Amino acid sequence: MAKQRVTIVEMGLRDGLQNETVTLTPSVRLELIQKLVNSGIRRIEIGAFVSPKWVPQMAGSGELVRSALRLQKEKRISRNIEFSALVPNEKGMIMAMETGIREIAVFASASESFSKKNINCNIDESFARFEPVIALAIKNKIKIRGYLSACFGCPFEGKISEAKVVKLARRLRDLGCYEISIGDTIGVATPNQVESLFKKIKKVVPAKKIAAHFHDTRGQALANILAAYYLGVRTFDASVGGLGGCPYAPGAAGNVSTEDVVYMFQGMGVETGISLDHLVAMNPWLTEKIQHPLATKAGRVGKLIPSGRI
Amino acid sequence: MAKQRVTIVEMGLRDGLQNETVTLTPSVRLELIQKLVNSGIRRIEIGAFVSPKWVPQMAGSGELVRSALRLQKEKRISRNIEFSALVPNEKGMIMAMETGIREIAVFASASESFSKKNINCNIDESFARFEPVIALAIKNKIKIRGYLSACFGCPFEGKISEAKVVKLARRLRDLGCYEISIGDTIGVATPNQVESLFKKIKKVVPAKKIAAHFHDTRGQALANILAAYYLGVRTFDASVGGLGGCPYAPGAAGNVSTEDVVYMFQGMGVETGISLDHLVAMNPWLTEKIQHPLATKAGRVGKLIPSGRI
Repeated sequence: MAKQRVTIVEMGLRDGLQNETVTLTPSVRLELIQKLVNSGIRRIEIGAFVSPKWVPQMAGSGELVRSALRLQKEKRISRNIEFSALVPNEKGMIMAMETGIREIAVFASASESFSKKNINCNIDESFARFEPVIALAIKNKIKIRGYLSACFGCPFEGKISEAKVVKLARRLRDLGCYEISIGDTIGVATPNQVESLFKKIKKVVPAKKIAAHFHDTRGQALANILAAYYLGVRTFDASVGGLGGCPYAPGAAGNVSTEDVVYMFQGMGVETGISLDHLVAMNPWLTEKIQHPLATKAGRVGKLIPSGRI
Repeated sequence: MAKQRVTIVEMGLRDGLQNETVTLTPSVRLELIQKLVNSGIRRIEIGAFVSPKWVPQMAGSGELVRSALRLQKEKRISRNIEFSALVPNEKGMIMAMETGIREIAVFASASESFSKKNINCNIDESFARFEPVIALAIKNKIKIRGYLSACFGCPFEGKISEAKVVKLARRLRDLGCYEISIGDTIGVATPNQVESLFKKIKKVVPAKKIAAHFHDTRGQALANILAAYYLGVRTFDASVGGLGGCPYAPGAAGNVSTEDVVYMFQGMGVETGISLDHLVAMNPWLTEKIQHPLATKAGRVGKLIPSGRI
């Protein structure tokens, strides 16, 4: 049997940093991108074209995208690396296009209340906002990734209907998203729920177009990734260091840590293309920049170390 | 189909506390036991009859066992609660018997080097030490649990042969252990390795006599528990709060957190008999006693809370 392979989509610079209290300058973020690329990561969401008034951590995303693309042009970063950025509306899309980026991401929520709280509009309105973004992307041959958040639960509505999630996933596919990232934004899912929902989504979106996006709020993320992997999903969103999930803060809601995901798949003999040693080596640098111990576990200890008593 | 059920064996008071820097008095530990019992936990390893010179955190284990058993006698703790204690040798066994405890645990390692480093003897010598312990236990109708540590890897020897683990598991079974706890003491296993090893162990020890004991050093514990569950294992060792694994310390090697395990199984519709709400409610008390934020995730946030941005 051919070796299995998974793709990690690195979220640290966007979903990670936007939930950190410290704001990193575009030049530190560029350094982070270079370290990630050196570790073998090939897909990176660089930032978001949102108002710095609302999300100061994403300020300078345009400058950062330009710098990264320039490094690719100068062959200091491989052309194989795929960069993307989150775009909430037409204004953001125009800014994104000015940078020359070749992939953008749009986002919707599976919960009406979560949508309203997060992006201040209901689900249909959020899709209406996509329309000009997607039209511009298609016209300019820019790839479109779609996020669907709160797919397993919402702090305001509780459990979300699977049928609703499936319907919205299909809607994102029909709009032209080449990949749909199914998010457990508040980290409430357990493996059986992942199995149940992803089975249904696979009927309308092929597994190769599905990404799984788990937050580790209740420690379930890796078990959920395993459940999704068993169902044929091969693309997983993760944040280096578990950025966005501070081990001090109650309610920390970070993405699953890239290192923990890489460790699991490497142990399972599944190719990730990523060097865990590289990620472990960059941990002290990242910890210093973020100014608190990172949530990652495998990223702190690496492959094999002595331990305490039995 | 009848509802599935799993049993959690609470390790916090022994495997947890022995790896914490702070030492809790027997009376605080008794308070902890009462809180655990109130949450619905029914099997608790209370302590260890080891020298307080080597493991000061376990000092007063005899006093603690006596107090817990007295509370049972007075019906202030249900008689259904099963308490056990770790016993390393004949001297410890005599001390254990003096308390009236009805279950003890012996431990061996699957790695020669790990055995030497941890208990200062090779594997055969450790089995020789059991002999009088087990003879006394059988004579006095005391249940015997067997631990096998470093089953997936050892910091000194690397990977451990599956055949060796299987042989030692059988040896513990033959000696009279009613349950054998297969430990990933340094937290290196990944789910496929769990699947492979447990399949082989099941050929010599029935699944109902196997417990899975995972440390979360590399964030893999819950995914590994899921893999073991899929193979029919129904008993899992876990530590409340993830005791023994400090989120600050590099190389933290705590047991998987009881709360995260309970959260997963409850989400999966599997009966644990344990109230997550109770465990969440005791988290601030335990954090104060341990003097650092606990490693548990579900134990800090509980079932459903608002989160950050998508």
